[in-house]
Amino acid sequence: MEMTCIGTDQELTALARRTREDLLQRMEDHLRAFLSAEHELWAGVNDRAVGAVTALTDLVAAGGKRIRPAFCIAGYLAADGDPGDPAVVTAAAALEMLHASALIHDDVIDASDQRRGRPTVHAHHSALHARHAWQGEARRFGEGVAVLVGDLALVYSEQLMAAAPAAVVPVWNTLRSELMIGQYMDMTAAAEFCVDPALSRWIALAKSGHYTIHRPLVVGAGAAGRPDLAPAFEKYGEAVGEAFQLRDDLLDAFGDSADTGKPAGLDFAQHKMTLLLGWAMQRDDRIHDLVTTPGHTPDEVRRRLLDTGVPDDVEKHIGDLVEQGCEAIADVPIDPVWRGELAAMAARVAFRTT
Amino acid sequence: MEMTCIGTDQELTALARRTREDLLQRMEDHLRAFLSAEHELWAGVNDRAVGAVTALTDLVAAGGKRIRPAFCIAGYLAADGDPGDPAVVTAAAALEMLHASALIHDDVIDASDQRRGRPTVHAHHSALHARHAWQGEARRFGEGVAVLVGDLALVYSEQLMAAAPAAVVPVWNTLRSELMIGQYMDMTAAAEFCVDPALSRWIALAKSGHYTIHRPLVVGAGAAGRPDLAPAFEKYGEAVGEAFQLRDDLLDAFGDSADTGKPAGLDFAQHKMTLLLGWAMQRDDRIHDLVTTPGHTPDEVRRRLLDTGVPDDVEKHIGDLVEQGCEAIADVPIDPVWRGELAAMAARVAFRTT
Repeated sequence: MEMTCIGTDQELTALARRTREDLLQRMEDHLRAFLSAEHELWAGVNDRAVGAVTALTDLVAAGGKRIRPAFCIAGYLAADGDPGDPAVVTAAAALEMLHASALIHDDVIDASDQRRGRPTVHAHHSALHARHAWQGEARRFGEGVAVLVGDLALVYSEQLMAAAPAAVVPVWNTLRSELMIGQYMDMTAAAEFCVDPALSRWIALAKSGHYTIHRPLVVGAGAAGRPDLAPAFEKYGEAVGEAFQLRDDLLDAFGDSADTGKPAGLDFAQHKMTLLLGWAMQRDDRIHDLVTTPGHTPDEVRRRLLDTGVPDDVEKHIGDLVEQGCEAIADVPIDPVWRGELAAMAARVAFRTT
Repeated sequence: MEMTCIGTDQELTALARRTREDLLQRMEDHLRAFLSAEHELWAGVNDRAVGAVTALTDLVAAGGKRIRPAFCIAGYLAADGDPGDPAVVTAAAALEMLHASALIHDDVIDASDQRRGRPTVHAHHSALHARHAWQGEARRFGEGVAVLVGDLALVYSEQLMAAAPAAVVPVWNTLRSELMIGQYMDMTAAAEFCVDPALSRWIALAKSGHYTIHRPLVVGAGAAGRPDLAPAFEKYGEAVGEAFQLRDDLLDAFGDSADTGKPAGLDFAQHKMTLLLGWAMQRDDRIHDLVTTPGHTPDEVRRRLLDTGVPDDVEKHIGDLVEQGCEAIADVPIDPVWRGELAAMAARVAFRTT
C-alpha cells in the first residue's frame, strides 16, 4: 500500500514537472515567434530597421537559465492554474523579455563585455564600429545601440504582459520600478563606496529576492486567480532569493567564466558592496577592514575571503536559507506535489554552478 | 447676422482652446501627482532610493513644449471626447513620460550636456561623481544613472497608459517600438555616414511625423472611440511632422541654445544625415558635395547652407507642408472649430522659435 502511494507520488511529481517543462517550452516558442513576427514586420519597412530586433533575438537565442519564467509557471501551476490557458505563457515570456532588457542595460552600466558566453550587445556593436572605422566614437555607438535595444526589449515585455489577466498588473508594476530603483541603488552605493550591510541586503532583496523569485511566483499565482498565496510566496522568495544572490556573488568571486558565460570578479573590480561581502563583514572583523579600506585588487579580496573561511560559512548559510524557504510554504494550501517541486527549485537555484 | 455668426465662432474657438488648455493643465497635475506619489513611496523604503525619481521629476518640472500631450488632447476633443473623462489625461501624461524617457536616453546617445536649459541627467550625475571623486569612472556613472532613470520613465509611461481605453493599445505599441527603431536607424545611419535622402525622410517620419503628431492624435481619437479619424490624422501628421522636423533641424543648425535649451550644431557635429540636409542635397548639387565629403566642421556646413540659400527655401517648404496638413483634414467629419484649432497647432509647431 505504501509502495503504491510512493509510486503515485513519484508519478504525480513527474507529471507536474513535465507540465512545467511543457509550459516553459511554450514560453520559449512564444518568445521566438514574437521576435520573429517583429523581425518580419520591420524587415518589410527597411533593411536597416531589423538590426535592433536581431541583436535582441541573438541574446534570447543564446540561452540563459530562464529562472523567472520557471518561477512564474511554477507559481501558476502550484495555484492550480489551467495549463491550457495561454495567459501564463505570455506572462512568463514577458518576464524573460524584461530580463533581456535588464541584462543589456546592466552590461552597459557594468562595462561587461561577455554575456551568455558571447559578446554583450554593446561590446559587439562597439567592435563593429571600430572594425568599419565608422563616424564618431566606437564606445558611444556600441552603448547607444545597447540602450535602444534594451528599450525595445522593455517595450516588448509590456506588449507580452498586456495579454495577462488584469490581476497581475499591480505586481508587474512593482516588480519593474523596484528593479530599476534597485539597480540605481546598487550603482550609487558602489560609486560612493557605501559600506552598509543592511543596504546591501535591501538591494539584494530588490534585485534578486523580489525580482527573480517572489514576484514571478506572485505573477503566476495572480494569473491563476490565487492572490492569497502572495504572503507565503513572499517569504519563500525572500529566503531563496537571498540564497540565489549569495550563490551569484560566490560564482562571480570564485567561479569560472567558462561556466557562467560572463566575466569573473566583476563585482570586486567595481567595488560592489555585494550581499556576500556585507554578510561576511558582519561575521569577521578582518573582512570589515578589507571592505572599508579601498584599493584592494579583486585577487586580494578573493584570497582574503578564502583565508577567513567565508566560502564554507556561506555555503552553510545558503543551505539554511533554502530550508527557511521550504518552511515558508510548509502550510500553504497548495498541492503537496507542488510544495515538493518548489523545494526542489529552491535547491536548484541555490546550489547551481552556472 | 454675419457678425453674430463670427462672434459665435470666435467664442467657440476660445472655448475649445480653454478646454484643451484645461486638459493640458490636468495632464501636468497628473504627471506631478504621479511622480510625487512615487517619491513618497520610495522615500518610505530608503533615502537613497528616491534619487532616480528626483532626477526624473526635475526633468519633467523643467518644462518642455508638451507637444505630444497637446496633440493627444486635441485629437480627443476633435473626436468629440468627453472632457470630463480622466482617461485622456492619463494617456496624454503617458506620452509625456515616454518622451522624458526618450530624451534622457537620447541625450546619452548624443553626448548632449544640456536639456531644457539645464544639465542633462547624465551630465549632472557625471559632474556629481567627479566632484565627490567617487569610485569608478564619472562618465560611466552619469550615463548609467541616465539609463536607469530613462528606464524608470519608460516603466512609468506604461503604468500611466494602462488607465487608457483598450482601443489605444495597438497604436501605443506601434508608437513605442517605432520610436526605438527610428532612433536606432538614425544612429546607425549617422555612424555609417549613410547619404540617402529617402532613409533620412523615413527616419524623420518615424521620429517626428508619427511619434510627435500622427500617433498622439490617433491615441486621442482612439480614447474617444473614433478610430475612423486615423487615416486623415496620419496624412496631417506626416505633413506637419515633416515641417516640425525641418524646423527642429533649422533650430539645431542656426538657432540659439539660449532659446532651445539644448546645445546648437549637434546634428552637424554628429554627422547626422538630417531631413534638412537630405532635402537640401536633392535640390542643390553643392550641398550634395558638401554632405558626401566628410571632414567639414559644423561652422563650415552652416556657412555653406546659408550661401546656397537653403534656409529661405526650406521656410517656404515648411509653409507648403503646413498647408498640406490642413488639406488632409479639410473634409474629415469633425467640428469645424477643431479643424481650425488643428490648423493653428500645425502653424505653431512649424513656425516655433524654441
